[in-house]
Amino acid sequence: MKRIADSTVRRLSAYLRFLEDFEQRGSLTISSEELAKQGGTTSAQVRKDLSFFGSFGKRGLGYSVPELASQLREILGLGREWRVIIVGAGKIGAALAQYRGFRQRGFTILAAYDINHDKIGRGLEGIPIRDMAELETDIARERPDIAVLTVPGEEAQVVVDRVVEAGIKAILNFAPTQLHAPADVAIKTVNMAMELEGLSFALTNRE
Amino acid sequence: MKRIADSTVRRLSAYLRFLEDFEQRGSLTISSEELAKQGGTTSAQVRKDLSFFGSFGKRGLGYSVPELASQLREILGLGREWRVIIVGAGKIGAALAQYRGFRQRGFTILAAYDINHDKIGRGLEGIPIRDMAELETDIARERPDIAVLTVPGEEAQVVVDRVVEAGIKAILNFAPTQLHAPADVAIKTVNMAMELEGLSFALTNRE
Repeated sequence: MKRIADSTVRRLSAYLRFLEDFEQRGSLTISSEELAKQGGTTSAQVRKDLSFFGSFGKRGLGYSVPELASQLREILGLGREWRVIIVGAGKIGAALAQYRGFRQRGFTILAAYDINHDKIGRGLEGIPIRDMAELETDIARERPDIAVLTVPGEEAQVVVDRVVEAGIKAILNFAPTQLHAPADVAIKTVNMAMELEGLSFALTNRE
Repeated sequence: MKRIADSTVRRLSAYLRFLEDFEQRGSLTISSEELAKQGGTTSAQVRKDLSFFGSFGKRGLGYSVPELASQLREILGLGREWRVIIVGAGKIGAALAQYRGFRQRGFTILAAYDINHDKIGRGLEGIPIRDMAELETDIARERPDIAVLTVPGEEAQVVVDRVVEAGIKAILNFAPTQLHAPADVAIKTVNMAMELEGLSFALTNRE
């Protein structure tokens, strides 16, 4: 398969959300124009995005809502449970631990890890907080798929090295740092300041 | 100016971060190849991204690090203070309020708003929590530029309508909902489940 851009994957996630809204309202078909309108893009872009993964829909008839939704779930790897650990039991960790959207999508948070002995052994929104010293042993035993990093920037690379060495292949990083990992490890960084910069750009470059 | 894609703006933010790292280490010039390598993209993409905003750099000599950094800051609208309010003083609000990266980039958080009277009047990481009932009066008086929404999904549209009516032109939304606003209002949505879906996609579609 061709290398798919991050922006394409984001749009697929967005399309899936609109399709699920449509499904709930009982709609059976949707046109690429409607999907495009909901996603703030063009119908040509919708067709191009979906064409990466084979042919969907019939010209003039649009897409079958339940069929396209189920195909997108499969493309996005949502047909199974993904096991997640959170490294860093601070405020962002707590916000993520309570986030209901994860479980709805099949992401199960196994545990959070911290070095603070006042936190270890306690719970974070119902998720156990464990000692960072046990990270590697736990990963070897429980085989989580994804590590979410909410540690300070200066500690992030060390944690990446540890989880990668222990076998983790996907990392969601909240530290405002550029991280390095082998090519077979997927890293996504969520940088809140960069999100705000997108808005300052929009405010500055208004028509 | 042409309409610039969100993904381009994200890359500009990323380039600026690498340039600032380079600046700190005393480097004076950088090639598009180096910028591309740091950003996980191609040098052709770097040149294309920068070409939207005029001509930068000299063929064979690369870009001047301090000059390009300062031009990117200007393009991104970072030469000034942006005034931010947080609507919803829950866990995500608290995580954002303590985030040092905002102030470093010129984003000043004025206040957080909530409907919970146990929270109103208290502080959120040093930021005052105010009554949602005062939202419109406060916006009229203090003229914040950006509203960050961390309210539950089912309340998000109502809050969007209120802040837009009060004059806000830029919204960073954490509610997992599609929001509607007039065309002159910039909305960015951060959806944690969508970030994880990018990783489940990567894990599912491995070579």
